[in-house]
Amino acid sequence: MPPTVADYVLARLADLGIDRVFGVPGDYAFPCDDAIDASERLAWILCANELNAAYAADGYARIKGAAILSTTYGVGELSALNGVMGAKAQRLPVFHLVGGPSTRIQRQRLSTHHTLGDGVFGNFQALSAAAACVSAELTPDNVVDELERVIREAFRLSAPAYITVPMDLAKMPIVGSPVTGVHLSSIKRSASSEQELAAALAFVLEQLRAAQHPVALSSQLVARYGLVEPLLAFLDRSGMAFAVTPMDKAVVSEAHPNYRGCYSGQGSSPVGVQQIVEEADLILDIGGVLFEDFNTSLWSQGIDPRRLLTLGDRFVRMGETIFANVMLRDMLTGLTPVTPQFSPPSPATALAPLPLLGSGDEMLSSASFYPRLQRMLRGGDCLVIETGTCMMHAAGMLLPDGVGYESQTLWGSIGWATPAAMGVCMARHGGRTILVTGDGAHQLTANELGVMGRYGIAPIIFVLNNGIYGAEDVLNARGHTYDDLAAWNYHQVPSAMGCDHWLTVKAATVAELERAIADAQSHADAAYIEVMIPRLESEPLPPALQDRVYKTATPGSVSAVA
Amino acid sequence: MPPTVADYVLARLADLGIDRVFGVPGDYAFPCDDAIDASERLAWILCANELNAAYAADGYARIKGAAILSTTYGVGELSALNGVMGAKAQRLPVFHLVGGPSTRIQRQRLSTHHTLGDGVFGNFQALSAAAACVSAELTPDNVVDELERVIREAFRLSAPAYITVPMDLAKMPIVGSPVTGVHLSSIKRSASSEQELAAALAFVLEQLRAAQHPVALSSQLVARYGLVEPLLAFLDRSGMAFAVTPMDKAVVSEAHPNYRGCYSGQGSSPVGVQQIVEEADLILDIGGVLFEDFNTSLWSQGIDPRRLLTLGDRFVRMGETIFANVMLRDMLTGLTPVTPQFSPPSPATALAPLPLLGSGDEMLSSASFYPRLQRMLRGGDCLVIETGTCMMHAAGMLLPDGVGYESQTLWGSIGWATPAAMGVCMARHGGRTILVTGDGAHQLTANELGVMGRYGIAPIIFVLNNGIYGAEDVLNARGHTYDDLAAWNYHQVPSAMGCDHWLTVKAATVAELERAIADAQSHADAAYIEVMIPRLESEPLPPALQDRVYKTATPGSVSAVA
Repeated sequence: MPPTVADYVLARLADLGIDRVFGVPGDYAFPCDDAIDASERLAWILCANELNAAYAADGYARIKGAAILSTTYGVGELSALNGVMGAKAQRLPVFHLVGGPSTRIQRQRLSTHHTLGDGVFGNFQALSAAAACVSAELTPDNVVDELERVIREAFRLSAPAYITVPMDLAKMPIVGSPVTGVHLSSIKRSASSEQELAAALAFVLEQLRAAQHPVALSSQLVARYGLVEPLLAFLDRSGMAFAVTPMDKAVVSEAHPNYRGCYSGQGSSPVGVQQIVEEADLILDIGGVLFEDFNTSLWSQGIDPRRLLTLGDRFVRMGETIFANVMLRDMLTGLTPVTPQFSPPSPATALAPLPLLGSGDEMLSSASFYPRLQRMLRGGDCLVIETGTCMMHAAGMLLPDGVGYESQTLWGSIGWATPAAMGVCMARHGGRTILVTGDGAHQLTANELGVMGRYGIAPIIFVLNNGIYGAEDVLNARGHTYDDLAAWNYHQVPSAMGCDHWLTVKAATVAELERAIADAQSHADAAYIEVMIPRLESEPLPPALQDRVYKTATPGSVSAVA
Repeated sequence: MPPTVADYVLARLADLGIDRVFGVPGDYAFPCDDAIDASERLAWILCANELNAAYAADGYARIKGAAILSTTYGVGELSALNGVMGAKAQRLPVFHLVGGPSTRIQRQRLSTHHTLGDGVFGNFQALSAAAACVSAELTPDNVVDELERVIREAFRLSAPAYITVPMDLAKMPIVGSPVTGVHLSSIKRSASSEQELAAALAFVLEQLRAAQHPVALSSQLVARYGLVEPLLAFLDRSGMAFAVTPMDKAVVSEAHPNYRGCYSGQGSSPVGVQQIVEEADLILDIGGVLFEDFNTSLWSQGIDPRRLLTLGDRFVRMGETIFANVMLRDMLTGLTPVTPQFSPPSPATALAPLPLLGSGDEMLSSASFYPRLQRMLRGGDCLVIETGTCMMHAAGMLLPDGVGYESQTLWGSIGWATPAAMGVCMARHGGRTILVTGDGAHQLTANELGVMGRYGIAPIIFVLNNGIYGAEDVLNARGHTYDDLAAWNYHQVPSAMGCDHWLTVKAATVAELERAIADAQSHADAAYIEVMIPRLESEPLPPALQDRVYKTATPGSVSAVA
């Protein structure tokens, strides 16, 4: 007997190397839920809600290369939409599987729950599909072909896929020969056009040969496409100095001898890396760095576009010269054996840990927190950093060898980090997962803590309690109240959500933080540390910069970037 | 100096009678947030996240007739989407105001946070607009006209409106003459076509005159369009017996002498109301009842379509006879003076409170909980009932005069009720708001409790803790584990979220529940009662019914409704 559509889809996705499904059950999704329940290869992770599930799948996909998200029709899939759109922005293959009303219901145009009551059943597919790069409505007779198409495109474009199946069809046996056993690592995602690749290689070589002091920037897309090894081979062989932007932090070890720091325009760290990058005679952008506002300290990059050579995921570009359908893998592997070799400039500023400010009974601040966070890190750790002021602080923090770093700098949806840390933690084997989140962001998705406790994962969680959406207070002038948060007793939350064996601590002084970190590191279960930070610690942007970017003063007086 | 676009929009919406804005701030929304902060007529309710804010706005709009939801571009608006779509399904005018990137950013096609990094700024508007019945992108020179259009359509169709404004334009003074002072109650939402109305009235009268024992069904749309008074006048004058479906419960007082109960096909309560409705020689559907699965005990209604006369929101229909552009208000007010008068049949079964089962140290169950919930109700209370088994139990519960009842039977998005109860509570002046939610649903949105505590509202909250998504376990066969929940200590949650003065209790026995209810009624602040319910209390549907509706057995063997 052939497998049912639901069983087949899940088995085929499990073949890719995925071992968990994040989601919320629902009656239209019962056939999918039943198939997950029956699968010996897939563990069901019941998330607190669908948006959290999408964030968790995002985190999991960053480590495993792909993830499965399962929700129900309408209410479930739409709740997940922002999280899946974030995975699209951050280029993560998340397979979003949605069970829908049976075709029996649809053909009768019955009024049914989770609809507008209008007998129309196509209202939501286009919305969900907008967060994906490919979508399919499965049937018993199309599932074998459609699923291969969906998988191919999701990996080719490194982005989410939307798969929906009516519940009656989900229970029917597939028609055709099942495809089995193809792991994601063996899927050929893309192939370059040979002539274009040859021309692009020659062009890039020509630029490299003409360069005296080039610098490389490495994008997170290198990791998304599984190309960290080829990138390292190129960096080692070429001897080029390299930097990353905040969004791309730790895509290569920050202990690499050629690493010069985190480039973010006028917010670069160490400061000297700005000069190294902006004064290079060739900036080799490997993967396609995004000169996005958060990533460039508000578009303060001073990079001459004529010196920027981008090796994109599927193109090469320098100014108006563009080579199309040239794959990054082919470019890197073609370039490495023939690249000229460089002696990288010495770091302009020594790469050093943050100074260890504060001690004893002094009240905590960011200045005393981050150095201690930095010193607890060790190889194998993975940091998950929420969007907010913590991202600004963490971007400049030099990471020891073997420490991973995940953030959502482009999409920047606050609340992402808590469930994403869960997904990261569940995807990894060994090594600690360390979450740093602001209080405001944490409130959006803190109900996921109960899920972490239930499934027995052991992250170390720092919640920075300053009582406000701090980043917004930096970006906008003070005096308003709309960023003031409800005053939670954060350290009580894990226990209330059933995380019985967690270490939970509230730290207000430096000594309390140091003790909490020590205890967390010796505690077998998860640790949750509420870190008290002064409410108005960060300086707001100067009014001129606020006006430039986020406000419009009297009409007629504005002539700046934004 | 004319007001800015943001100030004008908020002032105009405040004119309608709205006094709160639910939302989450964001940098693209700063001009809107600043305008809310500056408004003396609008209070800012900072919700835990955007979906919760949308649910809260839904609850508020049910009482006030309209609500404002404010979110930021991309991440914020998409997070709210499911909640706004629910307001569309349930026919609620929610004005969803979204601040977007400045036109300066857009014209430069800058790579910007909360986008896909592609310099495209129109990716999300169509998605948000799909949850609305009308949408507009505001500018200084179109805002006066566009806002009137948006307001008119939102009330005409009783559905959400989507309004977006780039942040620079939001700060600019409006061009044109502001419209002020028009309250929503004075907006003429629709006008019938006279000829069509006259013909429809004649047709309806003819049907009524031919009827011997008609029955009326009243839809929630009567309340949405502010027509409860005209409906009551018609019911009083005509003397017709009437019933409601679960979705429409309490649209008219259940203490009305002509009220016969809650009609839900084979799940009607009292049982006799099924016969009264199905054997009536004319069923006058006032507003447009939805014969949706949850509303009809899985499409078990036995109503002959030839005897069903629907007075819709803007149409009249009986079989193939349809009158278009006939407004419900005009129909009701036209019909009342001329309607024939009937003597309603006596109730087939006496309308009585639920029997008071259980006592003392007996463990609680639904059978002992609901009678006690029912007996604590008094005029002025508003019940907010979550989707789930609690909805099934509550639908059959006779409500005292003056008790309101809100549920989300059509959209059925679990998690709705907790934030919606907050919105309901904030919209009301006097009278208690009583929330009944299942534990599974509550986990999705429980972070809103901290918001309730912060703003000092005092609902009475019952969380039914049976450890699973109970409704799903009823709908599907047991033996799976995907509905098992993380084991929260619910009664600890309010304190962890800063609700310091709440009464929080865990009740496992009948005596404990009785004590908790007594304490809650004398407690000045909110009360939160965790009610322990047996895990597998409800019987699952018989396998035949499960197959009929939610499962497809071996292909070829199914010939039922769904």
